[in-house]
Formats: sequence, C-alpha cells, structure tokens
Amino acid sequence: MNDQPQSRNIKLVIAYRGTNYHGWQRQADGLPTVQEVVETAAARVLGERVSVNGASRTDAGVHAAGQVANLRTTNFAIPLENLRRAMDGKCPDDVSIRSAEEVEPDFHASRSARGKTYRYRIYVAPAKPVMLSDQVCLCRPPLDIERMRLASMRLVGTHDFAGFASAADERESTVRTLFRCDVAADGDEVLIHVTGDGFLYHMVRNIAGTLMEIGRGRWEPERIDEILSSGDRRRAGPTAPAEGLTLMCLYYDSIR
Amino acid sequence: MNDQPQSRNIKLVIAYRGTNYHGWQRQADGLPTVQEVVETAAARVLGERVSVNGASRTDAGVHAAGQVANLRTTNFAIPLENLRRAMDGKCPDDVSIRSAEEVEPDFHASRSARGKTYRYRIYVAPAKPVMLSDQVCLCRPPLDIERMRLASMRLVGTHDFAGFASAADERESTVRTLFRCDVAADGDEVLIHVTGDGFLYHMVRNIAGTLMEIGRGRWEPERIDEILSSGDRRRAGPTAPAEGLTLMCLYYDSIR
Repeated sequence: MNDQPQSRNIKLVIAYRGTNYHGWQRQADGLPTVQEVVETAAARVLGERVSVNGASRTDAGVHAAGQVANLRTTNFAIPLENLRRAMDGKCPDDVSIRSAEEVEPDFHASRSARGKTYRYRIYVAPAKPVMLSDQVCLCRPPLDIERMRLASMRLVGTHDFAGFASAADERESTVRTLFRCDVAADGDEVLIHVTGDGFLYHMVRNIAGTLMEIGRGRWEPERIDEILSSGDRRRAGPTAPAEGLTLMCLYYDSIR
Repeated sequence: MNDQPQSRNIKLVIAYRGTNYHGWQRQADGLPTVQEVVETAAARVLGERVSVNGASRTDAGVHAAGQVANLRTTNFAIPLENLRRAMDGKCPDDVSIRSAEEVEPDFHASRSARGKTYRYRIYVAPAKPVMLSDQVCLCRPPLDIERMRLASMRLVGTHDFAGFASAADERESTVRTLFRCDVAADGDEVLIHVTGDGFLYHMVRNIAGTLMEIGRGRWEPERIDEILSSGDRRRAGPTAPAEGLTLMCLYYDSIR
C-alpha cells in the first residue's frame, strides 16, 4: 500500500457550444457529453485516466463561455500551458480549453464556487435568425424591456426560489441569493444576465420565460412577488429553450 | 388533354444555416437537404407538389443569406405574404423564407441569373471560436491582409479559372468573369467577398484557400497569375472548409 500519492490539482476554464452535446455531465447511456470529451482529451495528454469535475451541470443544448472544472493528476512532467494547448487541440471545434492553472489541493470546481453568472439571449425580430438558431430564443416583437427590467429588480436578493424551480429535492433548501439580474438591449437581442450564489434546476430558464411573458404584456412586473411568495411553479412562465442559455463564469473569491 | 394550365411563377429568397444539411440539392439517398425541406413546406401550404428550383447548388455545410429559388403553382388563392409566412412557419429554425414575389413566366432562378455574391469568413485568433465552429474557418495569426488584397485584385476580370476548379466538365468553358473580390477585416474576422457571373465547382473555396496561403506568407500575390495561366489546380491552395462559405445574393438585372 502506498501513502496517498502526490498529485497536482488543475483548474480548467472551458468554453463550448452545447448544441451537439447532451449537456456537461457524463451519461450512462453513452450519449455524447462535454465532460466525456474533456476527460478523453485529458487522458490522451496526461497518459492516465482522470475525472474532470465541472462546476455546473449544464443541460443539453446549453453553452458555456467559462465553465470551470478541476482534475487531479500524478503527471508532474507536462507544463501547464502545454497541457492546455494539447488538450485544446484534442477537443473538437465546439469545445475549447481556455486556461489551465495549478490550484490548492482542496480546490473543488463545484463545492468551492461562491457564485456563477448565466446569460440568456433573446432574439427579437419578425424573421428567424437562421445562423443563430442554436444560440438564441426567438421572440416576435414587441417585447417591452422596461417592464422586464422592473420585474428583474424584484428577483434580486435572498428569496425562496421554489416557484422558479422545475424540480426540487425536498431535503434541500430552495433559498438562493441573486446578486444581479439585468435586462439589456443589444442590437436585435435582449440579454438577461443573472448572477447568484447558486441556481435550482431550470431556474434561469424559468426566470427568462417569466420575464418574456411580462415583456410581452401578459403579466405585470408584480407577478414576480406572487411567484416568489407562493413558491408555485405553475404561476411562473414556461421554461425558456436551452439554446438561449450560456454559463458565463464562476466566482471563487468574491462576486464581482 | 388540357391546354397548358395557367400557373403562377413565384420567386423565393431563402436563408439557411447549412450545418445540418447535405447541401441545397435533393439527394437520391434521402439525406436531408434544404431543397427537400422547402419543397415539403411548399406542398403543405399550396396543397400540391411543386419543384423548387434553386439558383445555386450550395454544398453540404455551406450557408445562404439570400439563396433564390422559383416554383410554379396552380394555386391562385393564397396571397403572396401569406404563402411566405406559412412556408416560413413550416420550415425548421435553420431555414427561413425571406420573401416571395410573383415573377414573369419565363423567370428561372438559375438560368436567369446574371451573377452571384459569396462571402467567405476566416476567424483569425489563437483560440477556437466555439460558438462559430460551424460558420467560420479558423486561421491562427498572423494573416497578412494586405498581401491577400494584392492577390485578390489579380483575380478580378475575365479569366480561365480552371486552376481554381476542383472538377471540370470538359465540354464546358471554364472562363468566368469576377466583378469583385474584396478582402476586409471585421473584428477578429477576415471576410472575402466575391461577385462573379458564375462559379466553377469549389471555386470560391479554392480562392479562399489560396488567399489564405498567400496571407500566411507561403506564396507571393503573383502566384495568382501563375495559377490562372497554367490552369493547374495543383498550383492553387487547398479547398477551404465549407462552413466558412455563405451564398449572399443573386443578381438578375445588373450586377451591383
């Protein structure tokens, strides 16, 4: 029996277009996932099998600009930038390793995270954006951004977000803190940025779906308070499509 | 026997992301094509089977902002804008019917065309553009745009373009006229726009591949003259990947 072998703990920042994957998390049925792609690349470069633990289990079709993951390896020979470049080269065109850095032994991409930011892209136009069909949610105009802004402000703070969760584990708290929920116009698009200490299942997509209903005039901004206080998922809007959602970044020190 | 039935000749402008299709042209083996998608939508809306004749047989993975096609229908009941909107609604998210107008009986999308414009997108960066992986050709810097411009100017005019054709039908002329061949920087991208009275098989992608070799410094701009005068495909650069190419528009009156 050996003593516990020394290993390097390496933090990766990973970008991907989720269109061709069944989400981040490895699937038992062998469907393609981003985790599997990155673990395969890591094994080929490091010469040993490693687990790559992602901070966020993004769903099928959801993208990432800055997913964070960590892996532990006993390979001390390869310099970090060579590791990054080699892994990037072994990933397909829609997955990229943006950075690799050595971190403290106790760093864990998911458990160490203090927060994350997601972006939801809504394309507001009468015509289908064919080149962005896997990256935005199409919404026919008009969409009143000011109403959406008023609603989004009501989400910021510490609340029980059960009404915005598609499924809840009853053993766990559904209280989360949103630090930011912005609605901004950007050309033909409306972008929703949400930063929080954690998110329930489908929470960002349910927030986006609800804000769109309010922007279309179906509900008043005060509807948010009703959803929060009732905790009733049926009072919130539909789950907005996965393709509009991108995991932007993770926070480990302070939330900016 | 009837007299030839009266029919309406309808010109369509169609946009699509070619990623999920084996090109425009219907395939005998049932692979998904854009023509099949549009013909199916037309049949459902018009209540009769029609042929939709495209101006350009774009290859697998090639996109279109303004493909033109025409169809003949005996359905006089449906107004044009309703036809457009209904067909657009029956097409998937990556195919869109941009306009529908009635044209002269002798209009033929392909044979009536006097020219077309293609755009080739090159993404110049050290990192993979994961969100554009199906829409650009990645080129690691440096890429010298001025050299590419000097080369592109040598392509404009009437030439035998055999050296830029991946395959040639010996019964047909390989002489074509290029009215425009521009190289322009646009953020992280280099865009090549080519307008001509017609294009040989893979001609734009072979031009793009050759201009990239010149931009990388492998060849001098004068290489263009050598390829044109020799007619030797082996002297030109590699065929640039399909995903960078978009059919922008067709010209029927004058070339702008």
